[in-house]
Amino acid sequence: MTTDSKIYSKSWLLTPGECNCEKEMPVWLMTERIIDVATEHANSWGVGYARLILDNQAWVLSRVAIEMKRWPKVNETYTLSTWVEDYNRHFSERNIEVTDTDGNVIGHARTVWVVIDLTTRQSCDISSLDYIRNNLCDKECPIAKHTRIRSVDAARTSEYTFQYSDIDFNQHVNSLRYIRLLLDQWTADFHNEHVVKRFEIAYMNEGLPEQTVQISVDDRSDDCTLEISHGSEPLCRTRIVFDNR
Amino acid sequence: MTTDSKIYSKSWLLTPGECNCEKEMPVWLMTERIIDVATEHANSWGVGYARLILDNQAWVLSRVAIEMKRWPKVNETYTLSTWVEDYNRHFSERNIEVTDTDGNVIGHARTVWVVIDLTTRQSCDISSLDYIRNNLCDKECPIAKHTRIRSVDAARTSEYTFQYSDIDFNQHVNSLRYIRLLLDQWTADFHNEHVVKRFEIAYMNEGLPEQTVQISVDDRSDDCTLEISHGSEPLCRTRIVFDNR
Repeated sequence: MTTDSKIYSKSWLLTPGECNCEKEMPVWLMTERIIDVATEHANSWGVGYARLILDNQAWVLSRVAIEMKRWPKVNETYTLSTWVEDYNRHFSERNIEVTDTDGNVIGHARTVWVVIDLTTRQSCDISSLDYIRNNLCDKECPIAKHTRIRSVDAARTSEYTFQYSDIDFNQHVNSLRYIRLLLDQWTADFHNEHVVKRFEIAYMNEGLPEQTVQISVDDRSDDCTLEISHGSEPLCRTRIVFDNR
Repeated sequence: MTTDSKIYSKSWLLTPGECNCEKEMPVWLMTERIIDVATEHANSWGVGYARLILDNQAWVLSRVAIEMKRWPKVNETYTLSTWVEDYNRHFSERNIEVTDTDGNVIGHARTVWVVIDLTTRQSCDISSLDYIRNNLCDKECPIAKHTRIRSVDAARTSEYTFQYSDIDFNQHVNSLRYIRLLLDQWTADFHNEHVVKRFEIAYMNEGLPEQTVQISVDDRSDDCTLEISHGSEPLCRTRIVFDNR
Protein backbone atom coordinates (compact mmCIF):
# COMPACT_ATOMS: atom_id res chain seq x y z
CA MET A 1 0.00 0.00 0.00
CA THR A 2 1.41 3.44 -0.94
CA THR A 3 0.74 6.71 0.86
CA ASP A 4 0.80 9.07 -2.17
CA SER A 5 -2.83 10.13 -1.95
CA LYS A 6 -3.35 10.50 -5.74
CA ILE A 7 -2.30 6.92 -6.50
CA TYR A 8 -3.23 3.98 -4.27
CA SER A 9 -1.50 0.60 -4.69
CA LYS A 10 -2.00 -2.82 -3.15
CA SER A 11 -0.49 -6.28 -3.78
CA TRP A 12 -1.95 -9.78 -3.54
CA LEU A 13 -0.70 -13.34 -3.98
CA LEU A 14 -2.77 -15.39 -6.45
CA THR A 15 -3.58 -18.59 -4.52
CA PRO A 16 -4.22 -21.94 -6.30
CA GLY A 17 -7.87 -21.97 -5.13
CA GLU A 18 -8.50 -18.60 -6.80
CA CYS A 19 -7.26 -19.67 -10.24
CA ASN A 20 -9.32 -20.63 -13.25
CA CYS A 21 -8.66 -23.89 -15.13
CA GLU A 22 -5.74 -22.25 -16.98
CA LYS A 23 -3.93 -21.72 -13.63
CA GLU A 24 -4.39 -17.97 -14.13
CA MET A 25 -6.34 -15.14 -12.54
CA PRO A 26 -9.96 -15.16 -13.74
CA VAL A 27 -11.65 -11.98 -15.04
CA TRP A 28 -14.11 -11.95 -12.11
CA LEU A 29 -11.30 -11.95 -9.52
CA MET A 30 -9.51 -9.09 -11.32
CA THR A 31 -12.77 -7.15 -11.18
CA GLU A 32 -13.09 -7.92 -7.45
CA ARG A 33 -9.55 -6.59 -6.89
CA ILE A 34 -10.37 -3.47 -8.94
CA ILE A 35 -13.36 -2.84 -6.66
CA ASP A 36 -11.13 -3.51 -3.61
CA VAL A 37 -8.49 -0.90 -4.50
CA ALA A 38 -11.08 1.65 -5.60
CA THR A 39 -12.96 1.21 -2.32
CA GLU A 40 -9.82 1.43 -0.18
CA HIS A 41 -8.66 4.53 -2.08
CA ALA A 42 -12.01 6.27 -1.49
CA ASN A 43 -11.91 5.16 2.16
CA SER A 44 -8.38 6.63 2.53
CA TRP A 45 -9.79 9.99 1.36
CA GLY A 46 -12.66 9.74 3.84
CA VAL A 47 -15.26 9.49 1.06
CA GLY A 48 -15.90 5.76 1.11
CA TYR A 49 -18.90 3.72 2.16
CA ALA A 50 -18.83 4.94 5.78
CA ARG A 51 -19.09 8.63 4.73
CA LEU A 52 -21.60 8.30 1.89
CA ILE A 53 -24.00 6.09 3.85
CA LEU A 54 -24.57 9.06 6.20
CA ASP A 55 -26.32 10.71 3.23
CA ASN A 56 -27.99 7.42 2.21
CA GLN A 57 -25.67 7.23 -0.81
CA ALA A 58 -23.20 4.67 -2.15
CA TRP A 59 -20.63 4.31 -4.93
CA VAL A 60 -21.80 1.95 -7.69
CA LEU A 61 -19.62 0.48 -10.42
CA SER A 62 -21.15 1.35 -13.80
CA ARG A 63 -18.57 0.25 -16.40
CA VAL A 64 -15.36 -1.77 -16.48
CA ALA A 65 -12.86 -2.30 -19.32
CA ILE A 66 -9.88 -4.59 -18.68
CA GLU A 67 -7.10 -5.18 -21.21
CA MET A 68 -4.29 -7.58 -20.27
CA LYS A 69 -0.98 -8.35 -21.98
CA ARG A 70 -0.96 -11.40 -19.71
CA TRP A 71 -2.90 -12.51 -16.62
CA PRO A 72 -1.22 -13.17 -13.23
CA LYS A 73 -0.29 -16.85 -12.76
CA VAL A 74 -0.76 -19.20 -9.79
CA ASN A 75 1.39 -18.30 -6.75
CA GLU A 76 2.42 -14.99 -8.38
CA THR A 77 2.22 -11.67 -6.52
CA TYR A 78 0.56 -8.87 -8.51
CA THR A 79 -0.10 -5.20 -7.75
CA LEU A 80 -2.98 -2.90 -8.70
CA SER A 81 -2.40 0.88 -8.69
CA THR A 82 -5.41 3.16 -9.09
CA TRP A 83 -6.03 6.87 -9.72
CA VAL A 84 -8.88 9.15 -10.83
CA GLU A 85 -8.44 10.53 -14.35
CA ASP A 86 -11.51 12.76 -14.51
CA TYR A 87 -14.96 13.36 -13.11
CA ASN A 88 -18.09 15.36 -13.83
CA ARG A 89 -21.52 15.80 -12.23
CA HIS A 90 -22.58 12.29 -13.18
CA PHE A 91 -19.58 9.97 -12.86
CA SER A 92 -15.96 9.48 -11.87
CA GLU A 93 -13.44 7.82 -14.21
CA ARG A 94 -10.93 5.70 -12.29
CA ASN A 95 -8.04 3.86 -13.95
CA ILE A 96 -5.97 0.88 -12.82
CA GLU A 97 -2.49 -0.33 -13.76
CA VAL A 98 -1.55 -3.98 -13.07
CA THR A 99 2.11 -4.89 -12.49
CA ASP A 100 3.95 -8.13 -11.73
CA THR A 101 6.54 -8.77 -9.00
CA ASP A 102 9.31 -7.24 -11.12
CA GLY A 103 7.29 -4.08 -11.74
CA ASN A 104 6.48 -4.92 -15.35
CA VAL A 105 3.12 -3.52 -16.50
CA ILE A 106 0.96 -6.51 -17.52
CA GLY A 107 -2.40 -4.79 -17.98
CA HIS A 108 -4.74 -1.87 -17.42
CA ALA A 109 -8.36 -1.21 -16.58
CA ARG A 110 -10.72 1.73 -16.95
CA THR A 111 -13.75 2.03 -14.66
CA VAL A 112 -16.68 4.42 -14.41
CA TRP A 113 -18.38 4.95 -11.02
CA VAL A 114 -21.57 6.77 -10.08
CA VAL A 115 -23.00 7.71 -6.70
CA ILE A 116 -26.60 6.60 -6.18
CA ASP A 117 -29.26 7.45 -3.62
CA LEU A 118 -29.97 4.13 -1.94
CA THR A 119 -33.72 4.76 -1.68
CA THR A 120 -34.46 5.98 -5.21
CA ARG A 121 -31.51 4.04 -6.82
CA GLN A 122 -31.01 7.20 -8.95
CA SER A 123 -27.58 8.74 -9.53
CA CYS A 124 -26.57 11.83 -7.53
CA ASP A 125 -24.67 14.98 -8.53
CA ILE A 126 -21.03 14.54 -7.47
CA SER A 127 -19.71 17.83 -8.88
CA SER A 128 -19.37 19.29 -5.38
CA LEU A 129 -16.92 16.61 -4.21
CA ASP A 130 -13.77 18.74 -3.79
CA TYR A 131 -11.56 15.82 -2.79
CA ILE A 132 -11.89 14.43 -6.32
CA ARG A 133 -10.88 17.73 -7.97
CA ASN A 134 -7.86 17.95 -5.67
CA ASN A 135 -6.73 14.42 -6.42
CA LEU A 136 -7.06 14.13 -10.20
CA CYS A 137 -3.96 12.46 -11.63
CA ASP A 138 -2.53 12.63 -15.16
CA LYS A 139 -0.84 9.20 -15.07
CA GLU A 140 -1.30 7.56 -18.47
CA CYS A 141 -3.80 4.75 -19.12
CA PRO A 142 -2.99 3.54 -22.65
CA ILE A 143 -6.07 1.33 -23.28
CA ALA A 144 -9.10 2.51 -25.25
CA LYS A 145 -12.15 3.89 -23.48
CA HIS A 146 -15.32 1.80 -23.20
CA THR A 147 -17.17 0.81 -26.37
CA ARG A 148 -20.81 1.82 -26.53
CA ILE A 149 -22.67 -1.45 -27.20
CA ARG A 150 -26.12 -0.52 -28.49
CA SER A 151 -27.52 -4.01 -29.00
CA VAL A 152 -26.48 -7.63 -29.45
CA ASP A 153 -27.29 -9.54 -32.64
CA ALA A 154 -27.64 -12.97 -30.99
CA ALA A 155 -26.10 -15.98 -32.73
CA ARG A 156 -27.23 -18.11 -29.77
CA THR A 157 -29.07 -17.69 -26.48
CA SER A 158 -29.40 -19.54 -23.18
CA GLU A 159 -31.21 -19.08 -19.86
CA TYR A 160 -30.17 -18.95 -16.22
CA THR A 161 -32.12 -18.55 -12.97
CA PHE A 162 -30.36 -16.59 -10.21
CA GLN A 163 -29.77 -18.56 -6.99
CA TYR A 164 -29.20 -17.69 -3.31
CA SER A 165 -25.39 -17.75 -3.66
CA ASP A 166 -25.58 -15.20 -6.52
CA ILE A 167 -27.18 -12.53 -4.31
CA ASP A 168 -25.18 -9.83 -2.52
CA PHE A 169 -25.70 -7.74 0.63
CA ASN A 170 -28.11 -5.43 -1.27
CA GLN A 171 -30.38 -8.40 -2.13
CA HIS A 172 -29.40 -7.93 -5.80
CA VAL A 173 -27.25 -10.15 -7.99
CA ASN A 174 -23.54 -9.75 -7.18
CA SER A 175 -21.87 -7.79 -9.99
CA LEU A 176 -19.15 -10.46 -10.27
CA ARG A 177 -21.78 -13.16 -10.89
CA TYR A 178 -22.66 -11.59 -14.25
CA ILE A 179 -19.03 -11.97 -15.31
CA ARG A 180 -18.96 -15.69 -14.41
CA LEU A 181 -22.26 -16.21 -16.21
CA LEU A 182 -20.98 -14.44 -19.35
CA LEU A 183 -17.73 -16.43 -19.49
CA ASP A 184 -19.71 -19.65 -18.87
CA GLN A 185 -21.20 -19.24 -22.35
CA TRP A 186 -18.02 -21.02 -23.53
CA THR A 187 -16.71 -24.42 -22.42
CA ALA A 188 -13.61 -25.02 -20.30
CA ASP A 189 -12.01 -26.51 -23.44
CA PHE A 190 -12.60 -23.27 -25.35
CA HIS A 191 -11.06 -21.24 -22.50
CA ASN A 192 -8.08 -23.60 -22.37
CA GLU A 193 -7.41 -22.68 -26.02
CA HIS A 194 -8.26 -18.96 -25.83
CA VAL A 195 -7.32 -16.07 -23.56
CA VAL A 196 -9.39 -12.95 -22.80
CA LYS A 197 -7.43 -9.99 -24.21
CA ARG A 198 -10.06 -7.36 -23.46
CA PHE A 199 -13.19 -7.54 -21.31
CA GLU A 200 -15.82 -4.80 -21.09
CA ILE A 201 -19.04 -4.70 -19.10
CA ALA A 202 -21.70 -2.01 -18.71
CA TYR A 203 -24.04 -2.59 -15.76
CA MET A 204 -27.55 -1.35 -16.63
CA ASN A 205 -30.13 -2.89 -14.26
CA GLU A 206 -30.03 -5.09 -11.18
CA GLY A 207 -30.94 -8.79 -11.14
CA LEU A 208 -33.03 -10.38 -8.38
CA PRO A 209 -33.21 -13.82 -6.67
CA GLU A 210 -35.09 -16.50 -8.64
CA GLN A 211 -35.22 -14.24 -11.71
CA THR A 212 -34.74 -16.17 -14.96
CA VAL A 213 -32.64 -14.23 -17.45
CA GLN A 214 -31.70 -14.68 -21.11
CA ILE A 215 -28.06 -14.55 -22.23
CA SER A 216 -27.61 -13.46 -25.87
CA VAL A 217 -24.24 -14.17 -27.47
CA ASP A 218 -22.77 -12.92 -30.74
CA ASP A 219 -19.51 -14.87 -31.10
CA ARG A 220 -19.27 -15.08 -34.89
CA SER A 221 -15.76 -13.60 -34.56
CA ASP A 222 -13.17 -13.40 -31.75
CA ASP A 223 -14.62 -9.95 -30.93
CA CYS A 224 -17.81 -10.97 -29.13
CA THR A 225 -20.77 -9.05 -27.72
CA LEU A 226 -23.17 -10.40 -25.09
CA GLU A 227 -26.25 -9.21 -23.21
CA ILE A 228 -27.96 -10.52 -20.10
CA SER A 229 -31.61 -9.45 -20.13
CA HIS A 230 -34.82 -10.02 -18.18
CA GLY A 231 -37.57 -9.82 -20.75
CA SER A 232 -37.09 -6.50 -22.55
CA GLU A 233 -34.90 -5.07 -19.76
CA PRO A 234 -31.12 -5.37 -20.28
CA LEU A 235 -29.17 -6.10 -17.07
CA CYS A 236 -25.73 -5.69 -18.66
CA ARG A 237 -23.96 -5.59 -22.01
CA THR A 238 -20.46 -6.95 -22.58
CA ARG A 239 -17.69 -7.10 -25.16
CA ILE A 240 -15.09 -9.87 -24.93
CA VAL A 241 -12.10 -10.02 -27.29
CA PHE A 242 -10.40 -13.43 -27.32
CA ASP A 243 -6.95 -14.35 -28.58
CA ASN A 244 -5.49 -17.82 -29.20
CA ARG A 245 -3.22 -19.09 -26.42
CA MET B 1 0.02 -13.55 11.68
CA THR B 2 1.59 -15.17 14.75
CA THR B 3 5.05 -16.76 14.91
CA ASP B 4 4.28 -19.56 17.45
CA SER B 5 4.83 -22.44 15.04
CA LYS B 6 2.17 -24.73 16.57
CA ILE B 7 -0.64 -22.21 16.08
CA TYR B 8 -0.94 -20.00 12.99
CA SER B 9 -3.31 -17.01 12.95
CA LYS B 10 -4.42 -14.53 10.30
CA SER B 11 -7.02 -11.75 10.17
CA TRP B 12 -9.22 -10.45 7.36
CA LEU B 13 -11.77 -7.66 6.88
CA LEU B 14 -15.13 -8.89 5.54
CA THR B 15 -15.81 -6.57 2.57
CA PRO B 16 -19.37 -5.76 1.38
CA GLY B 17 -18.81 -7.56 -1.93
CA GLU B 18 -17.92 -10.80 -0.10
CA CYS B 19 -21.13 -10.91 1.96
CA ASN B 20 -24.20 -13.05 1.35
CA CYS B 21 -27.68 -11.49 1.26
CA GLU B 22 -27.79 -11.44 5.09
CA LYS B 23 -24.75 -9.05 5.12
CA GLU B 24 -22.74 -11.86 6.74
CA MET B 25 -19.85 -14.12 5.79
CA PRO B 26 -21.04 -17.01 3.60
CA VAL B 27 -20.10 -20.64 4.39
CA TRP B 28 -18.05 -20.91 1.16
CA LEU B 29 -15.88 -17.91 2.07
CA MET B 30 -15.25 -19.31 5.58
CA THR B 31 -14.13 -22.55 3.93
CA GLU B 32 -11.83 -20.58 1.60
CA ARG B 33 -10.26 -18.83 4.61
CA ILE B 34 -9.85 -22.21 6.38
CA ILE B 35 -7.95 -23.49 3.33
CA ASP B 36 -5.91 -20.24 3.29
CA VAL B 37 -4.68 -20.53 6.91
CA ALA B 38 -4.05 -24.28 6.62
CA THR B 39 -2.01 -23.72 3.45
CA GLU B 40 0.00 -20.85 4.93
CA HIS B 41 0.67 -22.85 8.12
CA ALA B 42 1.97 -25.81 6.08
CA ASN B 43 4.04 -23.41 3.95
CA SER B 44 5.54 -21.85 7.12
CA TRP B 45 6.72 -25.35 8.15
CA GLY B 46 8.22 -25.92 4.69
CA VAL B 47 5.76 -28.74 3.91
CA GLY B 48 3.32 -26.84 1.68
CA TYR B 49 2.58 -27.08 -2.01
CA ALA B 50 6.12 -26.11 -3.10
CA ARG B 51 7.70 -29.00 -1.13
CA LEU B 52 5.13 -31.73 -1.85
CA ILE B 53 5.00 -31.04 -5.59
CA LEU B 54 8.67 -32.16 -5.76
CA ASP B 55 7.35 -35.65 -4.93
CA ASN B 56 4.31 -35.19 -7.23
CA GLN B 57 2.08 -34.95 -4.15
CA ALA B 58 -0.41 -32.41 -2.82
CA TRP B 59 -2.55 -31.79 0.27
CA VAL B 60 -6.26 -32.37 -0.41
CA LEU B 61 -9.12 -31.31 1.85
CA SER B 62 -11.23 -34.36 2.68
CA ARG B 63 -13.72 -33.21 5.35
CA VAL B 64 -14.85 -29.93 6.89
CA ALA B 65 -17.15 -29.28 9.87
CA ILE B 66 -17.92 -25.67 10.79
CA GLU B 67 -19.99 -24.65 13.81
CA MET B 68 -20.63 -20.94 14.41
CA LYS B 69 -22.18 -19.10 17.36
CA ARG B 70 -22.45 -16.19 14.93
CA TRP B 71 -20.98 -15.36 11.50
CA PRO B 72 -18.71 -12.33 10.90
CA LYS B 73 -20.66 -9.27 9.71
CA VAL B 74 -19.98 -6.79 6.89
CA ASN B 75 -16.92 -4.54 7.51
CA GLU B 76 -15.94 -6.64 10.56
CA THR B 77 -12.39 -7.94 11.04
CA TYR B 78 -12.21 -11.64 11.98
CA THR B 79 -9.30 -13.95 12.81
CA LEU B 80 -8.73 -17.65 12.11
CA SER B 81 -6.23 -19.57 14.27
CA THR B 82 -5.28 -23.10 13.23
CA TRP B 83 -3.39 -26.06 14.74
CA VAL B 84 -2.98 -29.80 14.14
CA GLU B 85 -4.73 -31.96 16.75
CA ASP B 86 -3.63 -35.38 15.52
CA TYR B 87 -2.45 -37.35 12.52
CA ASN B 88 -1.93 -40.94 11.40
CA ARG B 89 -0.70 -42.69 8.25
CA HIS B 90 -3.77 -41.67 6.29
CA PHE B 91 -4.80 -38.18 7.36
CA SER B 92 -4.10 -35.07 9.42
CA GLU B 93 -6.75 -33.49 11.67
CA ARG B 94 -6.48 -29.69 11.68
CA ASN B 95 -8.71 -27.46 13.82
CA ILE B 96 -9.63 -23.78 13.50
CA GLU B 97 -10.87 -21.21 16.03
CA VAL B 98 -12.64 -18.07 14.75
CA THR B 99 -12.51 -14.88 16.84
CA ASP B 100 -13.91 -11.37 16.41
CA THR B 101 -12.06 -8.05 16.80
CA ASP B 102 -12.46 -8.15 20.60
CA GLY B 103 -11.01 -11.67 20.80
CA ASN B 104 -14.37 -13.33 21.48
CA VAL B 105 -14.58 -16.87 20.12
CA ILE B 106 -17.46 -16.93 17.59
CA GLY B 107 -16.95 -20.37 16.05
CA HIS B 108 -14.81 -23.42 15.34
CA ALA B 109 -14.02 -25.77 12.50
CA ARG B 110 -12.57 -29.26 12.22
CA THR B 111 -10.88 -30.35 9.00
CA VAL B 112 -9.36 -33.61 7.74
CA TRP B 113 -6.58 -33.49 5.12
CA VAL B 114 -4.93 -36.23 3.09
CA VAL B 115 -1.86 -36.20 0.85
CA ILE B 116 -2.47 -37.62 -2.63
CA ASP B 117 -0.18 -38.70 -5.45
CA LEU B 118 -1.11 -36.36 -8.31
CA THR B 119 -0.78 -39.07 -10.97
CA THR B 120 -2.73 -41.90 -9.31
CA ARG B 121 -5.02 -39.55 -7.21
CA GLN B 122 -4.52 -42.13 -4.39
CA SER B 123 -3.69 -41.09 -0.82
CA CYS B 124 -0.09 -41.40 0.42
CA ASP B 125 1.34 -42.57 3.76
CA ILE B 126 2.12 -39.44 5.82
CA SER B 127 3.29 -41.23 9.00
CA SER B 128 6.92 -40.30 8.26
CA LEU B 129 6.26 -36.55 8.35
CA ASP B 130 8.19 -35.60 11.52
CA TYR B 131 7.22 -31.93 11.39
CA ILE B 132 3.62 -32.91 12.16
CA ARG B 133 4.59 -35.03 15.20
CA ASN B 134 6.71 -32.16 16.53
CA ASN B 135 3.94 -29.61 16.12
CA LEU B 136 0.86 -31.37 17.51
CA CYS B 137 -1.07 -28.99 19.76
CA ASP B 138 -3.52 -29.79 22.57
CA LYS B 139 -5.54 -26.56 22.24
CA GLU B 140 -9.22 -27.40 22.73
CA CYS B 141 -11.72 -27.61 19.85
CA PRO B 142 -15.13 -27.94 21.56
CA ILE B 143 -17.26 -28.89 18.53
CA ALA B 144 -18.22 -32.48 17.68
CA LYS B 145 -16.22 -34.49 15.17
CA HIS B 146 -17.62 -35.14 11.69
CA THR B 147 -20.79 -37.17 11.32
CA ARG B 148 -20.54 -40.24 9.09
CA ILE B 149 -23.31 -39.76 6.52
CA ARG B 150 -23.96 -43.16 4.93
CA SER B 151 -26.72 -42.17 2.51
CA VAL B 152 -29.32 -39.50 1.86
CA ASP B 153 -33.05 -40.30 1.88
CA ALA B 154 -34.04 -37.69 -0.73
CA ALA B 155 -37.19 -35.67 -0.13
CA ARG B 156 -36.43 -33.74 -3.34
CA THR B 157 -33.79 -33.70 -6.09
CA SER B 158 -32.52 -31.27 -8.71
CA GLU B 159 -29.85 -31.20 -11.42
CA TYR B 160 -26.93 -28.95 -12.28
CA THR B 161 -24.36 -28.96 -15.10
CA PHE B 162 -20.87 -27.75 -14.16
CA GLN B 163 -19.66 -24.70 -16.11
CA TYR B 164 -16.26 -23.18 -16.99
CA SER B 165 -16.26 -20.84 -13.96
CA ASP B 166 -16.81 -23.83 -11.61
CA ILE B 167 -13.51 -25.48 -12.65
CA ASP B 168 -10.26 -25.01 -10.73
CA PHE B 169 -6.56 -25.18 -11.64
CA ASN B 170 -6.67 -29.03 -11.52
CA GLN B 171 -9.43 -29.08 -14.20
CA HIS B 172 -11.83 -30.41 -11.53
CA VAL B 173 -14.77 -28.65 -9.90
CA ASN B 174 -13.61 -26.12 -7.28
CA SER B 175 -14.34 -27.51 -3.81
CA LEU B 176 -16.08 -24.25 -2.84
CA ARG B 177 -18.48 -24.60 -5.78
CA TYR B 178 -20.09 -27.66 -4.16
CA ILE B 179 -20.87 -25.56 -1.08
CA ARG B 180 -22.59 -22.84 -3.14
CA LEU B 181 -24.55 -25.48 -5.04
CA LEU B 182 -25.67 -27.17 -1.81
CA LEU B 183 -26.82 -23.92 -0.18
CA ASP B 184 -28.59 -22.94 -3.44
CA GLN B 185 -31.08 -25.75 -2.75
CA TRP B 186 -32.89 -23.16 -0.61
CA THR B 187 -34.16 -19.71 -1.69
CA ALA B 188 -32.68 -16.38 -0.59
CA ASP B 189 -35.93 -15.86 1.42
CA PHE B 190 -35.30 -19.10 3.34
CA HIS B 191 -31.71 -18.04 4.09
CA ASN B 192 -32.92 -14.60 5.22
CA GLU B 193 -35.03 -16.40 7.85
CA HIS B 194 -32.53 -19.13 8.82
CA VAL B 195 -28.87 -19.24 9.79
CA VAL B 196 -26.42 -22.13 9.28
CA LYS B 197 -25.42 -23.31 12.77
CA ARG B 198 -23.35 -26.27 11.63
CA PHE B 199 -22.09 -27.21 8.17
CA GLU B 200 -20.32 -30.48 7.33
CA ILE B 201 -19.01 -31.72 4.00
CA ALA B 202 -17.16 -34.92 3.04
CA TYR B 203 -15.49 -34.73 -0.38
CA MET B 204 -15.61 -38.15 -2.09
CA ASN B 205 -15.02 -37.81 -5.84
CA GLU B 206 -14.10 -34.99 -8.20
CA GLY B 207 -16.55 -33.32 -10.59
CA LEU B 208 -15.66 -32.45 -14.20
CA PRO B 209 -16.59 -29.68 -16.70
CA GLU B 210 -19.97 -30.16 -18.44
CA GLN B 211 -20.84 -33.04 -16.08
CA THR B 212 -24.52 -33.02 -15.07
CA VAL B 213 -24.99 -33.99 -11.42
CA GLN B 214 -27.97 -34.78 -9.21
CA ILE B 215 -28.47 -33.01 -5.88
CA SER B 216 -30.48 -35.04 -3.33
CA VAL B 217 -31.90 -33.16 -0.35
CA ASP B 218 -33.45 -34.46 2.86
CA ASP B 219 -34.74 -31.33 4.62
CA ARG B 220 -37.72 -32.78 6.47
CA SER B 221 -36.25 -31.23 9.64
CA ASP B 222 -33.78 -28.40 10.40
CA ASP B 223 -31.03 -31.07 10.49
CA CYS B 224 -30.58 -31.69 6.75
CA THR B 225 -28.49 -34.13 4.72
CA LEU B 226 -27.55 -33.66 1.06
CA GLU B 227 -25.60 -35.52 -1.60
CA ILE B 228 -24.22 -34.43 -4.96
CA SER B 229 -23.83 -37.45 -7.21
CA HIS B 230 -22.97 -38.30 -10.82
CA GLY B 231 -24.99 -41.39 -11.62
CA SER B 232 -24.18 -43.92 -8.89
CA GLU B 233 -20.97 -42.08 -7.88
CA PRO B 234 -21.27 -39.70 -4.89
CA LEU B 235 -19.16 -36.51 -5.27
CA CYS B 236 -19.83 -35.26 -1.73
CA ARG B 237 -22.18 -35.70 1.23
CA THR B 238 -23.21 -32.86 3.51
CA ARG B 239 -25.04 -32.15 6.75
CA ILE B 240 -26.47 -28.68 7.36
CA VAL B 241 -28.12 -27.72 10.66
CA PHE B 242 -30.24 -24.56 10.41
CA ASP B 243 -31.53 -22.35 13.19
CA ASN B 244 -34.13 -19.58 13.01
CA ARG B 245 -32.68 -16.04 12.84
